[in-house]
Amino acid sequence: MTTLGQLGERNVIARLVDRLGTRSNVVCGPGDDAAVVRITENAGVDLVLTSDAVLENRHFSSGTDPCAIGQKAVARALSDLAAMGSNPQWALIDIVAPATIDIETIENVYEGATGVAAEHGMVIVGGDTTEGSPFGMHVFAAGTVPPNAAIYRSGAKHGHALFVTGTLGGSSLGHHLAFTPRVREGVWLRDWASSMIDLSDGLATDLRHLAEKSDVGFEIVQQRIPISECVQNANDSLAGFMHALKDGEDYELLFTVPGARASAFKSAWEEAFDLGCSQIGVATAKAGYIEIESPVGEVRLLDNQGYEHFTSNQ
Amino acid sequence: MTTLGQLGERNVIARLVDRLGTRSNVVCGPGDDAAVVRITENAGVDLVLTSDAVLENRHFSSGTDPCAIGQKAVARALSDLAAMGSNPQWALIDIVAPATIDIETIENVYEGATGVAAEHGMVIVGGDTTEGSPFGMHVFAAGTVPPNAAIYRSGAKHGHALFVTGTLGGSSLGHHLAFTPRVREGVWLRDWASSMIDLSDGLATDLRHLAEKSDVGFEIVQQRIPISECVQNANDSLAGFMHALKDGEDYELLFTVPGARASAFKSAWEEAFDLGCSQIGVATAKAGYIEIESPVGEVRLLDNQGYEHFTSNQ
Repeated sequence: MTTLGQLGERNVIARLVDRLGTRSNVVCGPGDDAAVVRITENAGVDLVLTSDAVLENRHFSSGTDPCAIGQKAVARALSDLAAMGSNPQWALIDIVAPATIDIETIENVYEGATGVAAEHGMVIVGGDTTEGSPFGMHVFAAGTVPPNAAIYRSGAKHGHALFVTGTLGGSSLGHHLAFTPRVREGVWLRDWASSMIDLSDGLATDLRHLAEKSDVGFEIVQQRIPISECVQNANDSLAGFMHALKDGEDYELLFTVPGARASAFKSAWEEAFDLGCSQIGVATAKAGYIEIESPVGEVRLLDNQGYEHFTSNQ
Repeated sequence: MTTLGQLGERNVIARLVDRLGTRSNVVCGPGDDAAVVRITENAGVDLVLTSDAVLENRHFSSGTDPCAIGQKAVARALSDLAAMGSNPQWALIDIVAPATIDIETIENVYEGATGVAAEHGMVIVGGDTTEGSPFGMHVFAAGTVPPNAAIYRSGAKHGHALFVTGTLGGSSLGHHLAFTPRVREGVWLRDWASSMIDLSDGLATDLRHLAEKSDVGFEIVQQRIPISECVQNANDSLAGFMHALKDGEDYELLFTVPGARASAFKSAWEEAFDLGCSQIGVATAKAGYIEIESPVGEVRLLDNQGYEHFTSNQ
């Protein structure tokens, strides 16, 4: 008998995914930020489907503003839709709550949820409320994308430039509750990105997801990583960098652009958005290797565990 | 401050639904068995979306066969899709499980879930696993239906004949875990039914839902209610009838057919299915009144609380 805790989330998912079948109307099953399915040949769009859970004492502490809980739950799903380059459309919300919770709290959760949904063009069309504990919610969201226009984790190729939106690190200081999912940017990137993922697990881990699905490596430049102000430390540049690598819940977009278009892309981005976008590295042919160039020009290898520590390959 | 327990599920949902907006591509928002949305004008189908939760110690006890848990969770969602007359297509499964649970248990849950999904033409395309307690799962399911062909709770009219599939009562004896969602029947009923709902809360309550949404009353004939063998009692016909009214979790279809087509419908049904289908009454113009004719011809009124007791209106 092996418990879920012993296996770890990654292996649990791998074993479960093996049991799922597929069908001709499934364009992309499990293993990306969302699933992509084909409704009919004439529909003019593919459908992008994702679900996300937000549970008390895991994704938020018990004193958290209910409105922020609703916002976070919906924004996480929106971030998944954004990472596929899809336009958010409809969502269902399942709430599990103890009978002793007051209705105003739940109304505030909904206020937050519907507010952030509406800001990004999505409408909540239903769901379910069940008595239970601890308090939590599951958001199911559907978006649309032109046929074959979804952006997958698997499209990066050797030589493609690697970009990230916004700044990274410090999510635990509050950003994890109040972030803006990069929906407009994700849709716009359909014209540019060869691969894309949203940063939920942290740059180190999500970079590895992109590398594995695309069968490439990445070389990133430490000094180019955009560090959030709240974790910058003038005396210790490594500390801020480690936050950017490990914190998770940044909900920025990490994506590649074919090398020949990288320069045109940068100009187009600056024209389109105020939000920062940094080229932090390049895809390499060394499949699975994530190499990091330090400020003094030393190249180190990010180890296979994802983000625990550096291992020198010199 | 009012708690959810004080308000009751019905009022909680009413207050939350008030906060949801709508959009032009929403054909039917909250308040039916599932939501119906329009993908594009040319898609050729509408999309039907539903979600259902199955939680330990609420929808199943802790010793339950994991495979049966997975089956129940997916079958509940399939039953909602069936009640709209839609063809099941894709589902996402969110699992919440403690880290101490063994992987074989979760694999068995998936085995049950994928099995029942495949039987009804649905494929599981993704989802989410989160560490948490108690054990539970949320199923999000999407079906398709030709444009404007979904069957709502709101279409019954005075004079329409009221039918129910299968037999009712006794779900707690095991049927609530091992039922067949009426998917084939629901799709077939698109050509016949004017209104439809799946029986999850019990005949009395679900009949009231149909009456309220359709703005009609119903007169039902006690002797025509098909009672499950397991709750039949030769010495007490009322006892079996009360099970049929109150037990809930029958997951049969309750629907109306225009009176003029009722006879043709019955023949067509018998041609198409082995499953029983009983005409149990008729829709009346007395909006909100559910009247029951007893075996001795006495007509009684089912009270407003749904199913607690009979109140004579003589």
